[in-house]
Formats: sequence, structure tokens, C-alpha cells
Amino acid sequence: MTKAYVHGYDPRENVRLQDQATTLVELLHSDTVYPMGSRILEAGCGVGAQTMTLARNSPGALITSVDISEQSVAAAKQKVVAAGLENVQFQQGDIFRLPFRADSFDHIFVCFVLEHLKEPRTALLKLKEHLRPGGTITVIEGDHGSAYFYPDSDAAHTAIRCLVELQSLAGGNALIGRQLYPLLVSAGYGKVRVSPRMVYVDSSKPELVDGFTKKTFTAMIEGIRQSVIEAATVAARTNSWVDISTL
Amino acid sequence: MTKAYVHGYDPRENVRLQDQATTLVELLHSDTVYPMGSRILEAGCGVGAQTMTLARNSPGALITSVDISEQSVAAAKQKVVAAGLENVQFQQGDIFRLPFRADSFDHIFVCFVLEHLKEPRTALLKLKEHLRPGGTITVIEGDHGSAYFYPDSDAAHTAIRCLVELQSLAGGNALIGRQLYPLLVSAGYGKVRVSPRMVYVDSSKPELVDGFTKKTFTAMIEGIRQSVIEAATVAARTNSWVDISTL
Repeated sequence: MTKAYVHGYDPRENVRLQDQATTLVELLHSDTVYPMGSRILEAGCGVGAQTMTLARNSPGALITSVDISEQSVAAAKQKVVAAGLENVQFQQGDIFRLPFRADSFDHIFVCFVLEHLKEPRTALLKLKEHLRPGGTITVIEGDHGSAYFYPDSDAAHTAIRCLVELQSLAGGNALIGRQLYPLLVSAGYGKVRVSPRMVYVDSSKPELVDGFTKKTFTAMIEGIRQSVIEAATVAARTNSWVDISTL
Repeated sequence: MTKAYVHGYDPRENVRLQDQATTLVELLHSDTVYPMGSRILEAGCGVGAQTMTLARNSPGALITSVDISEQSVAAAKQKVVAAGLENVQFQQGDIFRLPFRADSFDHIFVCFVLEHLKEPRTALLKLKEHLRPGGTITVIEGDHGSAYFYPDSDAAHTAIRCLVELQSLAGGNALIGRQLYPLLVSAGYGKVRVSPRMVYVDSSKPELVDGFTKKTFTAMIEGIRQSVIEAATVAARTNSWVDISTL
């Protein structure tokens, strides 16, 4: 697995991921509750933003959270311990070579991970090896090409396109949300059911204006500013970059 | 009100609107039930595609359905009578000059209408005059700029952009969905709550592939083919039209 995580490992990014998780938790997996005693693998836990919700929602489940970044695993562990949650064990590990036997888990949870991988289908195939027969998987991914707004803004679309292209240069896919159904089917998962969730914000929802529009989405785009400028400097020579003059 | 209805009055369009209403009814207003005895105005009923659902869902409500097109009103009436529904009265009328007193209605229902008007805010202001104090309004509109798909298709985006521009040339706004909140607020409606609904289709939902993707959305775009070609011929002289060479 590549370590080219498009959002980087800046501490401010840690705060953003927590804001994102808090704002989106109702939308994304407020309904995720695992039965008593079930064995859950959270693949790509990052700094533990979603781990907290998983552990709180399913106190009787045994959650194993892994991430390729040692530093992120440490941050996630600290957070979970500080919250007094005791049903999570952490482990550093590469999704493509996890040290678990076949049939180790009843359920796998993957959130905002596939978008960063060069080979998301292979990741899904590998994960399936650790799932018991009849086990299930939840995959949550974004789709940055689905954003629209009023009034419209060419500058905003250009900025978003920069993120999409940067992620693509790093081997990822910021438009993977729309592709989940064929991806899961081609990786051999049965009974695939996609449930799209839209974040809608207007000024009657000040907590979402702040928590989502400003601190999650805009912050995400702002967070890649320097990387985009550097990538554009390189790409200018090959003339392959989008026009960032309006940024 | 202009009679420049972008989708035209072709009989096939009548069939498309019925397919659209049938496929979307669950999503759009399966939860719309009006109390016994309440007086409902359906403004812009067209050929009655939504009228049927309104009348069925609320057998005790008194529904008044108006449309500017005499021909559409006749088609709507025929449909409702054939279904044995007796709680609807029809009337030809212009939304901007309806022959009703103030306080005539408890609730107003508007579906896929504002997008065709040059002055949607004025329409909302005029409609409000017929609403009793404390009355409510439901406005349902589309947003054709919100469509995305996998695999992506430049030709499809161009075709959709043609509809958006055609509607704009006719004085309407195919992107009005995202604007409903500020529109309703600026027309003086209080406690505005927007509830966005997304139509998601993949191959596990053959009834939506057929009923929505093919018979509603694609049919809508196909339905304006001739109008776009004619408008492009005119616009070619002023160089103001999008490139339709990929169509």
C-alpha cells in the first residue's frame, strides 16, 4: 500500500477528521450497531475518528482497528483510551497483508479508505479472505465530484477539481463513491446494497454550515493547497494540470 | 406567465410525466397526507401526474388543481375521473392571476413548476396571497445540474447542459432545486425546511434503470432534441450556444 495519503498527517488534519466524523456521524453510521460478541475489523482506522462511534454504538462487539500508519494508530488508541472505551484493540498493518486468519471476522468496516488506494478492488478481495462465510462488509466512501451549490462558483469547482486530480496523481480516486456498486460486485461480494447519503446545508442549519461546509469540506480543500501548488509546478512542465489561476 | 414549456405538449411527454410520477412517487411525496376537510391548491397540475397521488393519499381533502394549459387540465381531469377519484376540482388558470380569494387554501402544492417560470419568486408571493394565515406550502423542484454517473460521460454532460441552456433561453431555470431555500425565504415564507431527495440507480434496481434512468431522465433529455437543434441553429449566428457536436 502506498503511503501517499492525499490529506497528509498534519495535526490540523487530525482536528478536521474529528470535525468531519462528528458532523457526519448521524448521516453515516448512526444506525451501525453490531451484535454482542461479534468480531469487527475496522480496516484503515486512521486517527480513530470513526472508531469512537463504532466502539460506543456496539459496546458488546470486539473491534480490531488497523491502519498502515503507526502514528495514526497511536493517536487513535490514545483517543479511545481517553474516552474509557475498552472494546477496541489496535494494530499497525497493511490492508493488503493483514496478519489475520481466514474467517477471523463477522463484519468489516471501511470508511474513507478505498479512495486513497491504487487498487481498491484488490483491497476488497484481500479483506474478504478474513471474513467468515456469511459475514458482511460496510464500505463508506465520498464522491467529491458530486458537490454543487448556490450561487454557483467556478473557482470552487476548480478548487475541487484540484483535489480530484491530486488524489488521482497519488494513485487514488476522489470520485469512488459512485463506483462502489460495481467495485463490490466485481470483488465477489453478494447482495450489494448502496445507500447514498447527501449532506445538504443551508443557512437554517448553522451547525452544518460550521461543522460541514467550513470545517469539513472547505477545510479539506484548503488542506491540499500547498500540495496542489507543488504538483502544479511539476505538472506545468508537462502541461497536464488543470488551470489553477482562479484559485 | 409564458407558455414556453420547455418539455412541450407532445403526447409522449404525457407518458414520460406519468412514468416519472410513478417512479418518483415514493421518493417525492409518499408522506404527503392532508387532513380531512383541508383545502388544497395544486398550482401547475399539468397532465395530472402528481394529482393522482395527492387525491389518493388524502381522500378527505378537497383538492383544487389548476394549470395554464386548457389541454393539460382536460387530460388531468380525464385521468382523475377514470380512476374514480372524486375529491379534485379542475380549473384553467394562470398562477400569477388565480381567481381565488385570500385565505382560500390551507395548503399549496407545487411540483416541477417554478423551474419553468421567469419569475419564480413572484409566483411564490402570489400563491401566498391565497393561503390562510398559518397555512403551508410544499414545493418540489428538480436540479438537473446535480446528475452524475459512473462511468462518466462528457456526451451525457453536454446533453444535460443543452437542457439547462434551453430552459434558460425559455426563461426558466433547470438548476432551481438548489435555490429553493433562499427563494422561499425571500418570498416571505417562514420556517423553511428543505429535504433533498436523491435518485440513486444501479443494476440491482432494474425497475429504476427502466422507470427512472431510461423512461424519465434519458427520455426528458431526448425529448428536447429537436428544440435544442433549432435553438442551436439560431444561436450559431450569435455564437452563444454550447458545443453540441458531441450529441
